[in-house]
Amino acid sequence: MSTGFFGDMKPVAYEGPESTNPLAFRHYNPDEVVLGKSLKEHLRFAVCYWHSFVWPGNDPFGGQTFQRPWFGDSMEQAKLKADAAFEMFELLGVPYFTFHDADVRPEGATLAESIAGLNEIADYFGKKMAETGVKLLWGTANLFGHRRYMAGAATNPDPDVFAYAAATVKSCIDVTHRLNGENYVLWGGREGYETLLNTDLGQELDQLGRFLSLVVDYKHKIGFKGTILIEPKPQEPTKHQYDFDVATVYGFLQRYGLENEVKLNIEQGHAILAGHSFEHELAMARTFGLFGSIDMNRNDYQSGWDTDQFPNNPLEVALAYYEILLAGGFTTGGTNFDAKLRRQSLDPEDLIAAHVGGMDTCARGLKAAAKMLEDKALTDPLKERYAGWQTPEAQAMLSGKRSLEEISERVLREGIDPKPRSGKQEILENIVNRYI
Amino acid sequence: MSTGFFGDMKPVAYEGPESTNPLAFRHYNPDEVVLGKSLKEHLRFAVCYWHSFVWPGNDPFGGQTFQRPWFGDSMEQAKLKADAAFEMFELLGVPYFTFHDADVRPEGATLAESIAGLNEIADYFGKKMAETGVKLLWGTANLFGHRRYMAGAATNPDPDVFAYAAATVKSCIDVTHRLNGENYVLWGGREGYETLLNTDLGQELDQLGRFLSLVVDYKHKIGFKGTILIEPKPQEPTKHQYDFDVATVYGFLQRYGLENEVKLNIEQGHAILAGHSFEHELAMARTFGLFGSIDMNRNDYQSGWDTDQFPNNPLEVALAYYEILLAGGFTTGGTNFDAKLRRQSLDPEDLIAAHVGGMDTCARGLKAAAKMLEDKALTDPLKERYAGWQTPEAQAMLSGKRSLEEISERVLREGIDPKPRSGKQEILENIVNRYI
Amino acid sequence: MSTGFFGDMKPVAYEGPESTNPLAFRHYNPDEVVLGKSLKEHLRFAVCYWHSFVWPGNDPFGGQTFQRPWFGDSMEQAKLKADAAFEMFELLGVPYFTFHDADVRPEGATLAESIAGLNEIADYFGKKMAETGVKLLWGTANLFGHRRYMAGAATNPDPDVFAYAAATVKSCIDVTHRLNGENYVLWGGREGYETLLNTDLGQELDQLGRFLSLVVDYKHKIGFKGTILIEPKPQEPTKHQYDFDVATVYGFLQRYGLENEVKLNIEQGHAILAGHSFEHELAMARTFGLFGSIDMNRNDYQSGWDTDQFPNNPLEVALAYYEILLAGGFTTGGTNFDAKLRRQSLDPEDLIAAHVGGMDTCARGLKAAAKMLEDKALTDPLKERYAGWQTPEAQAMLSGKRSLEEISERVLREGIDPKPRSGKQEILENIVNRYI
Amino acid sequence: MSTGFFGDMKPVAYEGPESTNPLAFRHYNPDEVVLGKSLKEHLRFAVCYWHSFVWPGNDPFGGQTFQRPWFGDSMEQAKLKADAAFEMFELLGVPYFTFHDADVRPEGATLAESIAGLNEIADYFGKKMAETGVKLLWGTANLFGHRRYMAGAATNPDPDVFAYAAATVKSCIDVTHRLNGENYVLWGGREGYETLLNTDLGQELDQLGRFLSLVVDYKHKIGFKGTILIEPKPQEPTKHQYDFDVATVYGFLQRYGLENEVKLNIEQGHAILAGHSFEHELAMARTFGLFGSIDMNRNDYQSGWDTDQFPNNPLEVALAYYEILLAGGFTTGGTNFDAKLRRQSLDPEDLIAAHVGGMDTCARGLKAAAKMLEDKALTDPLKERYAGWQTPEAQAMLSGKRSLEEISERVLREGIDPKPRSGKQEILENIVNRYI
Repeated sequence: MSTGFFGDMKPVAYEGPESTNPLAFRHYNPDEVVLGKSLKEHLRFAVCYWHSFVWPGNDPFGGQTFQRPWFGDSMEQAKLKADAAFEMFELLGVPYFTFHDADVRPEGATLAESIAGLNEIADYFGKKMAETGVKLLWGTANLFGHRRYMAGAATNPDPDVFAYAAATVKSCIDVTHRLNGENYVLWGGREGYETLLNTDLGQELDQLGRFLSLVVDYKHKIGFKGTILIEPKPQEPTKHQYDFDVATVYGFLQRYGLENEVKLNIEQGHAILAGHSFEHELAMARTFGLFGSIDMNRNDYQSGWDTDQFPNNPLEVALAYYEILLAGGFTTGGTNFDAKLRRQSLDPEDLIAAHVGGMDTCARGLKAAAKMLEDKALTDPLKERYAGWQTPEAQAMLSGKRSLEEISERVLREGIDPKPRSGKQEILENIVNRYI
Repeated sequence: MSTGFFGDMKPVAYEGPESTNPLAFRHYNPDEVVLGKSLKEHLRFAVCYWHSFVWPGNDPFGGQTFQRPWFGDSMEQAKLKADAAFEMFELLGVPYFTFHDADVRPEGATLAESIAGLNEIADYFGKKMAETGVKLLWGTANLFGHRRYMAGAATNPDPDVFAYAAATVKSCIDVTHRLNGENYVLWGGREGYETLLNTDLGQELDQLGRFLSLVVDYKHKIGFKGTILIEPKPQEPTKHQYDFDVATVYGFLQRYGLENEVKLNIEQGHAILAGHSFEHELAMARTFGLFGSIDMNRNDYQSGWDTDQFPNNPLEVALAYYEILLAGGFTTGGTNFDAKLRRQSLDPEDLIAAHVGGMDTCARGLKAAAKMLEDKALTDPLKERYAGWQTPEAQAMLSGKRSLEEISERVLREGIDPKPRSGKQEILENIVNRYI
Repeated sequence: MSTGFFGDMKPVAYEGPESTNPLAFRHYNPDEVVLGKSLKEHLRFAVCYWHSFVWPGNDPFGGQTFQRPWFGDSMEQAKLKADAAFEMFELLGVPYFTFHDADVRPEGATLAESIAGLNEIADYFGKKMAETGVKLLWGTANLFGHRRYMAGAATNPDPDVFAYAAATVKSCIDVTHRLNGENYVLWGGREGYETLLNTDLGQELDQLGRFLSLVVDYKHKIGFKGTILIEPKPQEPTKHQYDFDVATVYGFLQRYGLENEVKLNIEQGHAILAGHSFEHELAMARTFGLFGSIDMNRNDYQSGWDTDQFPNNPLEVALAYYEILLAGGFTTGGTNFDAKLRRQSLDPEDLIAAHVGGMDTCARGLKAAAKMLEDKALTDPLKERYAGWQTPEAQAMLSGKRSLEEISERVLREGIDPKPRSGKQEILENIVNRYI
Repeated sequence: MSTGFFGDMKPVAYEGPESTNPLAFRHYNPDEVVLGKSLKEHLRFAVCYWHSFVWPGNDPFGGQTFQRPWFGDSMEQAKLKADAAFEMFELLGVPYFTFHDADVRPEGATLAESIAGLNEIADYFGKKMAETGVKLLWGTANLFGHRRYMAGAATNPDPDVFAYAAATVKSCIDVTHRLNGENYVLWGGREGYETLLNTDLGQELDQLGRFLSLVVDYKHKIGFKGTILIEPKPQEPTKHQYDFDVATVYGFLQRYGLENEVKLNIEQGHAILAGHSFEHELAMARTFGLFGSIDMNRNDYQSGWDTDQFPNNPLEVALAYYEILLAGGFTTGGTNFDAKLRRQSLDPEDLIAAHVGGMDTCARGLKAAAKMLEDKALTDPLKERYAGWQTPEAQAMLSGKRSLEEISERVLREGIDPKPRSGKQEILENIVNRYI
């Protein structure tokens, strides 16, 4: 029986580029095949619970704008919320969803009660998943919202908070495992500091390293086959977040010997806030062997916080999927919309249309990226640009078979005087634009 | 014989806080002892050649404003410049200086000619150093100014540029070694990319790793006892610089097995551009065992590029030296003023006064930092805040003697429900302000 | 009878610079006289209601951290809050306070009920003000928090919202007038747009101009002698706020003929977010004859939102008060702390200590600024720099007595070839540092 | 006779969207008619002299990368440069060009000599313009590059610099008038300040107002029918530029009574640096009746300076032209590419291809914008959103026929309680994306 929240909306259908139906796909045809896989398999879309079903529309200067029948603290409302969520997953035809524990169950009076609520909802999810075929891309624990975490979860100066967070994560991995989640995500929303004046940075990093090791050990112990994912983010909510960006997390993982155990969930908005492009973060992760999954959204470049808008720029999205394709595409990961409506977008139709627009933008970007790859539009010029490094002498330098002195002697002996060649940036940018 | 450039200026003397003489120190008394060392030994001031003697005052919208008698391309002018430089070092009483090869000698028609020029000037320096007692904090190679490096030095798609850069660095290390330089610095001004469209990021990082290994090997081979320093900087001049910040370089060094061979030269302005505070970068380097030296300056927080101003904010400078003292102070490193006059500050007096103000700000900051340490003004509250981690059970968690399940069981069994405690940020900030 | 919230704290006393008592003033001696006025009269401190008594410590990623006995929706709690607030005003010895309607009374079921609540609290305030001597610096209406204002108050596409906001402002001016408030403030928290796609910018500016005219007319009608103040702010909470900065508001006021009726309340954090220094905004307001009052706080330069921290940088604060003194000091305006605790600063002591530190920083800054003025430390060099403009020919050019052709002819005839002179920026910065 | 610089390149032809020829237009068909005008008439493309023919490829960390046969200081080289420039104008088929005096003639030993050089080149231009049909969109004076302007031109503390600048501008208006330029532009590259410590802000604004008045008076005197345009820009090269953004200039023009005499040349990159979108600045100018012309380029949102890249984002460019069409399109203004190659793009082909890509992006954007207008895709929803303001009572409020009290009484009497309606931002964004 329907919640009625979405009225008489019908499942969103692919109608092609000329459609003007705001509730139809113009680019996302799930069964369209590119590079040997369907778009559905390539994109692996997920809807997130928190933005779409939990966030009330508040901002730092104003309160709730959305009015949803499931807002409240009871288990009945939690189930009504789940009903509406699965209705939306089916309307959109997304294969996956994602959630935090705190999104799906009321906060209990004790941890035990919170975990019991989580388990009860997990059972409810299990039935709905079986009925609809919708799967869990990943689960995660909210270790940042409650005041107990105000000074960090794993990195709290109080070891009891570390322990409480550990117990909470255990319960969330258990549920994720039970629901056949394909990954488990850790975003360190309060793992950072507000001021160095009251912070022992080295101690806190060691706590964070230990916490992650505990999670990895537990995963293996229970036979969870999903991927453990860390989600880098800089400077929000804490002034300095420890998982600043991909490169920072790479150094951290090496420090604690975890670089082969953990991969990354990379978010567009977080990349932007760190001063990088999304494709940069993806390329770094690919290079370091850390690429896992993405949180797709869009940050306003001119707002200094996480704006979590739905993607709408085909050009930028194409460059992101190009990197993902170069990385071999998703394995356990997927495209999770960590995107929220603007707080004035009050209507159920807004919620559906926003996802439709986002999915279409992704499909358009992916198809452009795939075509660029097929055409070798960028890879051929790249190969040519670096061709000099294929010579034996260059390879000898690169592999360490030449010393600084030997190289110096050769340069002076041969009078080497290198001539710069055009980097052709504008021509390459024009080429990309041909595909959009 | 004097160049006459500085007219009849006398060596800058310490006159105490009440002095209104713009060419006197009010805080920097080189012989004043704090924490068992003189300010001179603590601060280890260096004047840099490039900003003070080479930069013509241009900016992206305008040309030369400074008119110096040594501007030009001849060896005579190079020597005149050296004369003026050493006059200034003595006027200021700084114990050290720093330079790039391109700052001190004319660009030759060939690399051999450039190196010959460098060696000739090095001899000239050697005599002046012996006469004045001024020492070399570090030398470095300019691998970013010439058009041959426009697409990178070590990371160039053309291996001949890599080789040319290698030969250049060899010549600069040789000179640094000969002049008893205490460190050798690498700043990767063009080691980065403008657009991913024409960049093989993994290949370029491997090139950069190899280049650094060549330098480290060579250092050991010739018996250079100084420290090899990398200088992190984000997003300028290339859109993405590989040595983005301390955390990024830490990951890079681990990747290429160099984390015990190389330390960092950390610059205030570069920290700011990376979205960090200066003290954050210093604290990260301290934590990772990478702290080496500093480039002291000040970035305008509201200008999106490297403004390289002289420091003038005692509060911020105190927090930086506080971290340096926590790291044990400088060993081979020092306080290098990578700071330049505003382009309207045309007069020789401006050059002296700017350094005087900068040195005074540093001295004031260091003394405040030392006093805070002596008083345990921040360390005692810090110890108290983390005291919980000293309990046996907390230590057991941190050291890996408890599994996730064990921790979870204990939390549930004991009904742990942690209560947050005040972080006291404002109180600590007020304490710091007592010392300024 | 005391609320007990502040325990046994005693009124904060001035103990001088050497005091280490965190709850004593080290710089703010209210009776100390500089430039002919006491510090109390110069600084005219006000505590704001919203940050100190209303804000629960939430941020976009976490909920309430503060636990105050007066949190809740009843009139009893509103009065308890007032009791605690006046206790704090007396502990700090501040002469003024400020509030929004929504800070002090529960939201009613109807506007009439909300206004009735406001009036009841105003009576309660009136008694407390009489007892304590604390005065009202300004009142204001919260036209941004409730969902009815999500698309603007005066600039809403729905004229009913405009009308509702107008009625609300009337009630707040009435109360401000009754309580002898010295100013009335309008901050257009939702007067801006999220996307041009749904915005008629010209229409909305006309609405805003009309709204302000209604307020000005009403002020005159009821004989309110206070100043009407607009508070500029850019880009938050709406993507583009209409009152972006001082220069923007100046253009707006001229457009609607209000430049002689309205002055500005300028906030440090808002200046920073607009890409300006605080002293820039103050200097602009002074130049345009618009200077009114300040919201004193500190923005983290590296956080892209309004961080509203307590001021702690004496150097920056001195430059701000220097501009205020140049503008003739405050008349009806004052120093309102629009500053909030960090959300981890849970304790009553934090609230007091934060204000003490802020007041001390302001006092220190004001005293430095006054001394610079007395010494003509900056004004004499300034006069000298512009001295050329005092010649008759220069005055003739400036006043419009010379045409472009006449000037051109003179330049060519006399072969004028101007020579640049040093701007002496570093020397001037060093001078300022002498006063801190 | 050809300079040979562009080898055997042929004029760029329109080949349609499927073309893969990097030197063909895919979207810009100059004769294609939309909204009753050809694309050529709509877009009014201009190539700028400074970036394409003068800039040597330097940046703050490196020198010249481009090697052009016309680089140098002789009049012969100036003419060779003009030859190449007009060859490029014809290859691209652009109807207009733009220049500064300093771009086109060598700097003379005296102002008289500089003006003579300018006049000689103007004659040379005149012949080429007659031969090719290429016209002058606007001329301007470079009042920022030379050291004499380091502290401002009109706003210099030295009135001789003001006078020198005035004489220079006169010569440039004369030449612009003689060449039938359709506008004259003033960009205040050094009209701002580096530090308030040495700046008399009010004095400098008065100087700037006077300077502009002189120009306006002179324009009328000589019968120049073109538009006087000011180009807003924030924070570069001076720390604070007086012409910060459109709103700031609007206030300035009103202050000096020039709002009906002067219009604006608005640049994408400058808008971005001011914290605005390009379309915001265009909408503001439209609202204030100040829209004149555009400098089309693209700023890297993540670089804090003017990157002046060629536009390549059809979505953003469409939104800009949408505003321009709403403003009635260009009259004397046009689309000037104030865009430069990346410094690694060394080849003549890069220069052509970059413009081709930019022109195509503009054409694509304009066509999308025109179609949105024709379809009323955005205007119909806008009209509906503000429909409430068409009621008599709403009009009465807006036009000032209701007082604050009357409005308040009506609200209370009628129990008005407005209900928010969805702003539909995502749906509108999706609609825009249908047109790209």
